[in-house]
Amino acid sequence: MPRYALLVEYDGTPFVGWQRQANGLSVQQALEDAVQRLTGQQALVQGAGRTDAGVHASGQVAHVDLPREWPAHKLRAGLNFHLKTMLSRQAHNGQPVVVLAAAAVAEDFHARFSAIRRAYVYRILNRPAPPALQASRVWHVLQPLDAGIMHEAAQALVGRHDFTTFRASQCQADSPVKTLDAISVRRAGNAGEEIYIHVSARSFLHNQVRSIAGSLKLVGQGKWTAGDLRAALEACDRAACGPVAPPQGLYLVAVEYPVDPFAAEPPVV
Amino acid sequence: MPRYALLVEYDGTPFVGWQRQANGLSVQQALEDAVQRLTGQQALVQGAGRTDAGVHASGQVAHVDLPREWPAHKLRAGLNFHLKTMLSRQAHNGQPVVVLAAAAVAEDFHARFSAIRRAYVYRILNRPAPPALQASRVWHVLQPLDAGIMHEAAQALVGRHDFTTFRASQCQADSPVKTLDAISVRRAGNAGEEIYIHVSARSFLHNQVRSIAGSLKLVGQGKWTAGDLRAALEACDRAACGPVAPPQGLYLVAVEYPVDPFAAEPPVV
Repeated sequence: MPRYALLVEYDGTPFVGWQRQANGLSVQQALEDAVQRLTGQQALVQGAGRTDAGVHASGQVAHVDLPREWPAHKLRAGLNFHLKTMLSRQAHNGQPVVVLAAAAVAEDFHARFSAIRRAYVYRILNRPAPPALQASRVWHVLQPLDAGIMHEAAQALVGRHDFTTFRASQCQADSPVKTLDAISVRRAGNAGEEIYIHVSARSFLHNQVRSIAGSLKLVGQGKWTAGDLRAALEACDRAACGPVAPPQGLYLVAVEYPVDPFAAEPPVV
Repeated sequence: MPRYALLVEYDGTPFVGWQRQANGLSVQQALEDAVQRLTGQQALVQGAGRTDAGVHASGQVAHVDLPREWPAHKLRAGLNFHLKTMLSRQAHNGQPVVVLAAAAVAEDFHARFSAIRRAYVYRILNRPAPPALQASRVWHVLQPLDAGIMHEAAQALVGRHDFTTFRASQCQADSPVKTLDAISVRRAGNAGEEIYIHVSARSFLHNQVRSIAGSLKLVGQGKWTAGDLRAALEACDRAACGPVAPPQGLYLVAVEYPVDPFAAEPPVV
């Protein structure tokens, strides 16, 4: 059966997360239902990152095997048509899951296991007033944060470490040892009101980015020093972690593979 | 009575527009209701720009006279408390109007008549797939647009012109002659999928920015040449305008005054 890779954007707000669950609609389920409506057959849609409830994606990648071959743009448009029809009742406005691009891939391509790098962004709205335009899209932190100090402290996390401190208790990874390729913290957005935390690694532990963001917030407030963050990492103890940042600030923005599956099918016009 | 300037952000989606109307809730009404709950007295809230239904603002400015003096941060926090309480039923999530900053101003300060410059941004999401994360925040245009050609053509609009072509029939301005200070069109956002049109002028006609954006879209598609845009301007005829762009892509981002009323009360932490 021909295999296709899908580049997917979603608003995590109305979903129980990426992964199919009994307690509500997941992004995976929405995509699988759309595939079934389009092709008439059930199929498993496998994603690169299993994002939690409320977490967004602008560049999730998934793969699916279809009963017959599809021109990539027709597959994208067909899935979007069914997603829109299915989800218009769920969504406040528009369509909370869209397929940005589809592409035929080799049968050994696996969205999750072939990935060599994942990139996330964590967005903090750092101002006294709550968000009117970015509700459900950012973590609102009232206390003034020093992004420069957060950036410097965060560099201690780069490299290969035991990230037990920044790992959810329910994490299913075999090992808490991961290699963080890069982390940056910088002000951005309207009048510098936002703080963007960019992270990239081959793979992440469950809640790793939100655990790091929550701990970096303490550094930005001056409650923790850079040394405190380093000590938390070295403690290898979940109890040493700062309060985990909420899901609505987190975005899966990119997944990289040895060969870009969408290179021939650019998502941008 | 002491006069206060308010810096206001709003999601235009749930409102009938800035201005008070019989047919639904306006941003002005929401602010006036919040002022009444806070101070116990009715007051007129006057805005710098009368945005239409669905149009957003990240930097609207308004003024209001209050029965007594308020510390600026308490006024801001008090209005936000009441806005949140009042609007939580209207909004899908969060609070669609927030006061970013409040500041005491001279009694001759007028949000609308003292303004010397207004800046708007019009956002186009230019890709095949509809928006999942930016629904109600952008105009989705599927056809590939050439932002460079749009930018060049738009320069013909800069300066003092009769903008009758780009003016709504119901516009109440005395004269169709306005001076456009600057306009730029550039790609931005995730993978360059967005096109931002920035415009600034002392004041604008009703629907002027959306009329310009709709006409520039035709230029970006190649349906109009730069010469066609110039001819449309010179025609001074509403019928020569391209289809008016929808409200959800438009943002009032800044209003300038001879002296910045919020200079002593920076909205950013």
